[in-house]
Amino acid sequence: MNKKTCQERLQRCGQLMESAGMDVLILVKPANMHYLTGDGRLCAYAMITKDLKVVMGVPQTDIDDVKRLAHFDHIVGFENEVGLIHSVAHYFKDFGITKGVVGLEYSFLPAPRMGMFTHPHAKPEGVEPKDCTPIMSALRLVKDSEEIERMRAAGRVADAGMKAAVTSSKPGMTESQVAAEAEYAMRQAGADEFYRTYVSSGRRTNIAHGLPTQKKLEEGGLIMIDVHPVVNGYCSDLCRTVCVGKPTAEQQAAHDLYVKALEATIAKVRQGVGIDVLEQTMHDIFTEAGHKDHIFGPPIHGIGLEFEEAPLPAGHAFFHGEKGPGPLAAGTVIAIGNCGLYTGPWGIRVEDTVAVGPEGPQILTGFVRKLEV
Amino acid sequence: MNKKTCQERLQRCGQLMESAGMDVLILVKPANMHYLTGDGRLCAYAMITKDLKVVMGVPQTDIDDVKRLAHFDHIVGFENEVGLIHSVAHYFKDFGITKGVVGLEYSFLPAPRMGMFTHPHAKPEGVEPKDCTPIMSALRLVKDSEEIERMRAAGRVADAGMKAAVTSSKPGMTESQVAAEAEYAMRQAGADEFYRTYVSSGRRTNIAHGLPTQKKLEEGGLIMIDVHPVVNGYCSDLCRTVCVGKPTAEQQAAHDLYVKALEATIAKVRQGVGIDVLEQTMHDIFTEAGHKDHIFGPPIHGIGLEFEEAPLPAGHAFFHGEKGPGPLAAGTVIAIGNCGLYTGPWGIRVEDTVAVGPEGPQILTGFVRKLEV
Repeated sequence: MNKKTCQERLQRCGQLMESAGMDVLILVKPANMHYLTGDGRLCAYAMITKDLKVVMGVPQTDIDDVKRLAHFDHIVGFENEVGLIHSVAHYFKDFGITKGVVGLEYSFLPAPRMGMFTHPHAKPEGVEPKDCTPIMSALRLVKDSEEIERMRAAGRVADAGMKAAVTSSKPGMTESQVAAEAEYAMRQAGADEFYRTYVSSGRRTNIAHGLPTQKKLEEGGLIMIDVHPVVNGYCSDLCRTVCVGKPTAEQQAAHDLYVKALEATIAKVRQGVGIDVLEQTMHDIFTEAGHKDHIFGPPIHGIGLEFEEAPLPAGHAFFHGEKGPGPLAAGTVIAIGNCGLYTGPWGIRVEDTVAVGPEGPQILTGFVRKLEV
Repeated sequence: MNKKTCQERLQRCGQLMESAGMDVLILVKPANMHYLTGDGRLCAYAMITKDLKVVMGVPQTDIDDVKRLAHFDHIVGFENEVGLIHSVAHYFKDFGITKGVVGLEYSFLPAPRMGMFTHPHAKPEGVEPKDCTPIMSALRLVKDSEEIERMRAAGRVADAGMKAAVTSSKPGMTESQVAAEAEYAMRQAGADEFYRTYVSSGRRTNIAHGLPTQKKLEEGGLIMIDVHPVVNGYCSDLCRTVCVGKPTAEQQAAHDLYVKALEATIAKVRQGVGIDVLEQTMHDIFTEAGHKDHIFGPPIHGIGLEFEEAPLPAGHAFFHGEKGPGPLAAGTVIAIGNCGLYTGPWGIRVEDTVAVGPEGPQILTGFVRKLEV
């Protein structure tokens, strides 16, 4: 992200703060800090005023590193959490903010960390806290062309990880060893980190969040692999289910159905369509084929700097502190296929990352959708 | 964990709930659920009454899997977040709880998730929420012999990861590729997952939380590697700093000093000693050698089901919603060396996982502490 992009994002942020009646934001979530400053890290904060003054507080050890990455003038180091609080207080004073509204990330901060930023030693008494989640989600919702390119690169890394995982899926390998192959290949291909890597096999393909275990793959069993590399800050989300050997006719039929439903849903992706319409498309195809009771989980979620972010389906959004989604805007990126068919003894899930274009979808992950390999 | 251990933990939990005036707990944090039920997973909850009735709510897809792992009778599946809330409400009713205090994980739940469990559709009006963090931390503080054995196994996995990382640390490798070697080796050795793997090199060894990047290792530069495998639920924490080539005399002296301070601190570990005494031991050795301004971060933290848990040093504890630490009890496990010497152009950190014994320390990580390899 260059300085111009950073300035443009700050301008939009200022406008949203104005509309929301916020005088200053204090951000702690690395993805939010990254979006507005070019750097997001652990144990740090960014404070942004509505007239677009920016300060970033970081561990004192990190100051030089931040200066290389971020685009603004005020960088302050602190020694510990008390120092952090005092530096926040200092900048409230320095910026002349004694009353008004401070936006905090209610959907990210547990109570004790919320307490840091609302502590009387941090925040002036006249300043009231308010949730800034809606502002940050609105800001980050539509990706610019550079962001889409980064997500395309992340998609290529996800494909490389999936290829390694699928190739290694032989009887006797553990789920964790398959995850090892995926993650190793993704780091070689340029991943900086991962959100969770899910690998589940056999009966465990029927669980919703199948973190890898020491369970060994069995001949003829299914394996579900779901990878989320982070490349240059941005994520991809790719899931495939493959068979370790020869699938049964029933498994093949369920997989064919899943791919059909996924493709039909992706085909409807374009500016202006609702997430509910896409969900319904996928669910209808499953239901018509007799799998109504095997559907679990919302099939679609947004993706970007985080592997799961706005837009989120309505029910999910509420409990994540997000607004329900409107019609999809061009430049939004979504993962499609995040639900699954869970039949009891086994499950099927196939998922791709897709950018919403004005005229149709751009699929950012490309690995072949095949059960038998 | 067998059923007897589970029962014993529940008994202790009931006593702590009694003292704290809590009628029921609702746990969501996987580590807390794992400790009391034998299973902790994402998007699930455990509800525990003071007369030790337990219910676990999980995605409906996961019921069979939970039954294999957990030790109690009530397991309920839900379809989505609304179903989760309704199942909580159902069990409040089923257990006859209409008033009193429900313990929630204030140090884990951001506001929207807190809102799920305090929603009028979940919680009876007469039930007031209260933070259960102190109860859960007190319960998990002292590890039994099975837990220590698991942490020793995790320590061996950490050692295997460190060996692979150090061996691969050659000029031209990226930080992320070194992390790949560490993580791959740890999965081969039995890791199920990791808390973050830190790898930083050259000038980046001076930053406090050095997540790996695409930066290439340079001849003669330092590399700091900090690994946190999870094995059978339990963590280890191991950090080493090594030189990619020949260290300078200044680097060697700083490393020798760090190891000296670490060893002196570990030597003082035994039942009854305070974390403040251990911190002071380490800091004094640094300060006497002229490195007062190069120290950053609290050198000690607890470790167990989580890579950072109680006991935490006083300042840190406050902002994590924990009580300050008392004298260390036998069976507590701590990581020592989590601070660092940050000189500006480079930093040194060496960290091991240590169980507190009645008579002295048991070091659970064993990799050689050597700068030059």
